[in-house]
Amino acid sequence: MDLTDILATVHRDMQAHLGRGRVADYIPALARVDPKHFGIALITCHGQHAAAGDSAIPFSIQSVSKLFTLTLALEKHGGKLWKRVGHESSGSSFNSIVQLEQEQGIPRNPLINAGALVVTDALLESGAPANLITHITAFMQQLADDPSISVDPEVATSEGETGFRNASLANFLRAYNNLHSPVADVLQVYFNQCALRMNCRQLARAGLFLANAGIDPLNHTHITTPMRARRLNALMMTCGHYDASGDVAFRVGLPGKSGVGGGILAIAPGRASIAVWSPGLNPAGNSLVGQMALERLAALTGWSVF
Amino acid sequence: MDLTDILATVHRDMQAHLGRGRVADYIPALARVDPKHFGIALITCHGQHAAAGDSAIPFSIQSVSKLFTLTLALEKHGGKLWKRVGHESSGSSFNSIVQLEQEQGIPRNPLINAGALVVTDALLESGAPANLITHITAFMQQLADDPSISVDPEVATSEGETGFRNASLANFLRAYNNLHSPVADVLQVYFNQCALRMNCRQLARAGLFLANAGIDPLNHTHITTPMRARRLNALMMTCGHYDASGDVAFRVGLPGKSGVGGGILAIAPGRASIAVWSPGLNPAGNSLVGQMALERLAALTGWSVF
Amino acid sequence: MDLTDILATVHRDMQAHLGRGRVADYIPALARVDPKHFGIALITCHGQHAAAGDSAIPFSIQSVSKLFTLTLALEKHGGKLWKRVGHESSGSSFNSIVQLEQEQGIPRNPLINAGALVVTDALLESGAPANLITHITAFMQQLADDPSISVDPEVATSEGETGFRNASLANFLRAYNNLHSPVADVLQVYFNQCALRMNCRQLARAGLFLANAGIDPLNHTHITTPMRARRLNALMMTCGHYDASGDVAFRVGLPGKSGVGGGILAIAPGRASIAVWSPGLNPAGNSLVGQMALERLAALTGWSVF
Amino acid sequence: MDLTDILATVHRDMQAHLGRGRVADYIPALARVDPKHFGIALITCHGQHAAAGDSAIPFSIQSVSKLFTLTLALEKHGGKLWKRVGHESSGSSFNSIVQLEQEQGIPRNPLINAGALVVTDALLESGAPANLITHITAFMQQLADDPSISVDPEVATSEGETGFRNASLANFLRAYNNLHSPVADVLQVYFNQCALRMNCRQLARAGLFLANAGIDPLNHTHITTPMRARRLNALMMTCGHYDASGDVAFRVGLPGKSGVGGGILAIAPGRASIAVWSPGLNPAGNSLVGQMALERLAALTGWSVF
Repeated sequence: MDLTDILATVHRDMQAHLGRGRVADYIPALARVDPKHFGIALITCHGQHAAAGDSAIPFSIQSVSKLFTLTLALEKHGGKLWKRVGHESSGSSFNSIVQLEQEQGIPRNPLINAGALVVTDALLESGAPANLITHITAFMQQLADDPSISVDPEVATSEGETGFRNASLANFLRAYNNLHSPVADVLQVYFNQCALRMNCRQLARAGLFLANAGIDPLNHTHITTPMRARRLNALMMTCGHYDASGDVAFRVGLPGKSGVGGGILAIAPGRASIAVWSPGLNPAGNSLVGQMALERLAALTGWSVF
Repeated sequence: MDLTDILATVHRDMQAHLGRGRVADYIPALARVDPKHFGIALITCHGQHAAAGDSAIPFSIQSVSKLFTLTLALEKHGGKLWKRVGHESSGSSFNSIVQLEQEQGIPRNPLINAGALVVTDALLESGAPANLITHITAFMQQLADDPSISVDPEVATSEGETGFRNASLANFLRAYNNLHSPVADVLQVYFNQCALRMNCRQLARAGLFLANAGIDPLNHTHITTPMRARRLNALMMTCGHYDASGDVAFRVGLPGKSGVGGGILAIAPGRASIAVWSPGLNPAGNSLVGQMALERLAALTGWSVF
Repeated sequence: MDLTDILATVHRDMQAHLGRGRVADYIPALARVDPKHFGIALITCHGQHAAAGDSAIPFSIQSVSKLFTLTLALEKHGGKLWKRVGHESSGSSFNSIVQLEQEQGIPRNPLINAGALVVTDALLESGAPANLITHITAFMQQLADDPSISVDPEVATSEGETGFRNASLANFLRAYNNLHSPVADVLQVYFNQCALRMNCRQLARAGLFLANAGIDPLNHTHITTPMRARRLNALMMTCGHYDASGDVAFRVGLPGKSGVGGGILAIAPGRASIAVWSPGLNPAGNSLVGQMALERLAALTGWSVF
Repeated sequence: MDLTDILATVHRDMQAHLGRGRVADYIPALARVDPKHFGIALITCHGQHAAAGDSAIPFSIQSVSKLFTLTLALEKHGGKLWKRVGHESSGSSFNSIVQLEQEQGIPRNPLINAGALVVTDALLESGAPANLITHITAFMQQLADDPSISVDPEVATSEGETGFRNASLANFLRAYNNLHSPVADVLQVYFNQCALRMNCRQLARAGLFLANAGIDPLNHTHITTPMRARRLNALMMTCGHYDASGDVAFRVGLPGKSGVGGGILAIAPGRASIAVWSPGLNPAGNSLVGQMALERLAALTGWSVF
């Protein structure tokens, strides 16, 4: 099985679908992205690389960042974090405030917006937002082994100007005493982490520790424990694609996390880390072509965990 | 039927219940109010006054203010206001954000928090918050025929410091584009209108136009149209007591609006305006003894509209 | 004010709207009714009659029957009935099972389907369904002073054949132990009470006790107590028009109960009982033209309770 | 790694917990089961067996049966089945009717009660219930390679006498036209499939095809396609433990399906099929000790798919 050939096949098979879906348009910097982009890259636990399409063009990772802040927060707080956020799938849309009310301010899981705000707050504690943004960026640079990764300031600013729904969630969490830092500080960090720009190659590299029991297989750095790596993968499987997580488990069979920028990071445990990007979203808010590409990749590689 | 005797009877019958219920404790200025207070006052369309108990002690009118800002907003915008807020009972707790999400940012009615924020926004438009606060205060002074009525600055400040849930609602409305002014401005006005201090005599006097088809019967000032006065009463009947509105209709049979400060304004159309105050709240958030007093009053007077 | 003239005016003003709305089509006997029918009748507490349009044509009273079985159940069980069914507006559609689950099998009020099933069960206890159907029919004959009133057997049979949603509700109530008789028996009675055929004149006459504190003013029969009559009116005001009850309170200002057959019974307390019928329904399930006619009538008579 | 040793270790480690949880008590035959039972058995794709504890004592498989009727229905109807039932996790309790209403009669997935009723209906079509019960029983006998497997008639009868909630769901589905056979027929089959009695050894054997891409590895019989086997596993991972599915993915990392009889079938794809039984349930309705045992087993074997 030649992985470069497989990605080339996936790339070719997606041609007919490029441009489908709807590009996120709530901020200008996202709205003006060409919907026909498609990139894919993977890296195996043995360090083998493969890529196809626009794999070197950076995009806004958006909610994919939730996975990395969660990794940091678990290292910092351990299992106590689960007192503030659950680990069940939400069964409803990704920024729903309904469930939050019914469950008294404890978000269903850390991969929906409300949960990610709690995770960011857990990282922030009483520190300065700017320091935490620097710390998260440095973590992504370390994981991707690439010091050029940075936050897109235009996106971060735009998120702040239009992020009323996230401001609503953050205030709601604060009302339930499940946000401890000032709302504005938590939102500042959150909007910046979402505005990280990475390309598929960088993102696949950054996720590799999750395919290798928490250790970066190329430089042997401990990122998290084996148990936490497994649990992060489990969370991605059950909650990583908003309320289409079950459908992705069903069709693709790999844990993954998507973002409204059109990126998806998927993990084949023990094998590889894969990043795909295509900006058009399906109604559930996941990259339409990206999800199709992962389904095709899983079929060609047999990497489904099921 | 001597109204002074009736209020004395009501007052006496409430003695055994004074202190029941739970005083609102989310801000210090409310928490320290003595739960044993009880005051009641009424004024008829013919100008007859009666009062009993602590009818001259001022309290925070809180949500009762929603009725008066709604009156102003209807005069300003007319029926167009109903495109931004409904007029159905909510069937769930008073500051629920669930319903708001299900109904796409259109609050169920103007007497729940979300709806009142929209009403305040409709009054504010692009004006300065301080001007609107002055305008609302002047309106209450006019209605109560008492220039001493004012906002309690401690309460207004405390509301602002703890009002995360209202901040959440306001941001949520803004996310649905149903709030046009800056969130902070709307909240500033809202927290100030809730912090108006009035006693039962003033409050009963202020509501008298609602018992008299929109005209102040004592000075013949037009406050609103007969149709709007009827509709304000209808709204109070179906939505004025949060999700216990049906129970109050059932037991009391008069339109009314309650506030977490323990005040209730009730209207006997064509007859009188009644204000009652007792700080202990029942689980639905309405004055426990105040509601009992109104039930007793309705029984003694036969003023139920049913 | 000549009531016959007023009804003629209402009738004339409705001409332009006849045929609007959607006739209930879930059973053939309802689906084939001509949507252009319109009838209205009223009777005052002094025995004055007035009528216009198709006031002598019988129709299926459907949910209007809930008011009368509730009257019987209150006489039989008194206030204990309120342990099995609430008296708050539901804030959601008329046969919703959601609320029932959230509230552990206690229906929100007796005028929605779930609540009416509990009321029928409370009347049935261990008796035979046929006896109870006879009893309810006799009660309607007594109230309307007309022994010709009867159940339409075709409608009752059709309801049974298509009533899966009501069967679902009944089983659900049974699962919560809030239905004591066999599900099939309760449904049999319920489908028969809904299939009662009456015309506007009969229906207005039947409701007259509610306008007169529980006593039939023409023959001085005690039907219910003054307090219960007031409470029945309060329930109609807050819950009588499904989730448009607030809108009817707002526009009409009279307590009323509607049915999917297109009939509405409205009460002007102390004054009159009014029945209107027009088969086309609005989206909330209430007679579209019937509701308009009541709004017009209230405007012409000034009978709004507000 | 000696699997017999591992199961012995798991068995020993569970001793301290035996009797915890709450035995299902809604029917007598379940209520009287000794809560201290614990059995576990597994069989590998190479035919290796291991067992410990009460692995030969039969129990009521209850909802585990949903997995097998789903397998049959997918073979019969293929992908068309997914028009009648979804494949997303429900995010709420296992027999919730709320979600069914919000989603217009399409159950969230086939492993909750509503979805399983649709699956049974899809198998039943216009056939006789008794024939389908025979067919399902024969399928289980074939899969478990044991002709002694049978339905417990006492349990099936008791389910029918107390199954008001399932009767409610079935009528509800019928109201949305998503049940085609008579409600009573569907319920008869459903109550019988739930009443199948099997022990851990039989159940592990019956699930083995799911660990081996749809082919029984011991007799090479085609049970389902590789893709369907993967999808059945994905469904078990995201939906197999009611609203604790995410927690089981998180802690155990194996697809599984639980039943209120205390049984759980878990699949280690490519490796083995595991059945565990202990009657005490946790608040989510899954075997408390059974779930702990699977967590321990996954830790000892490293079989987590993540």
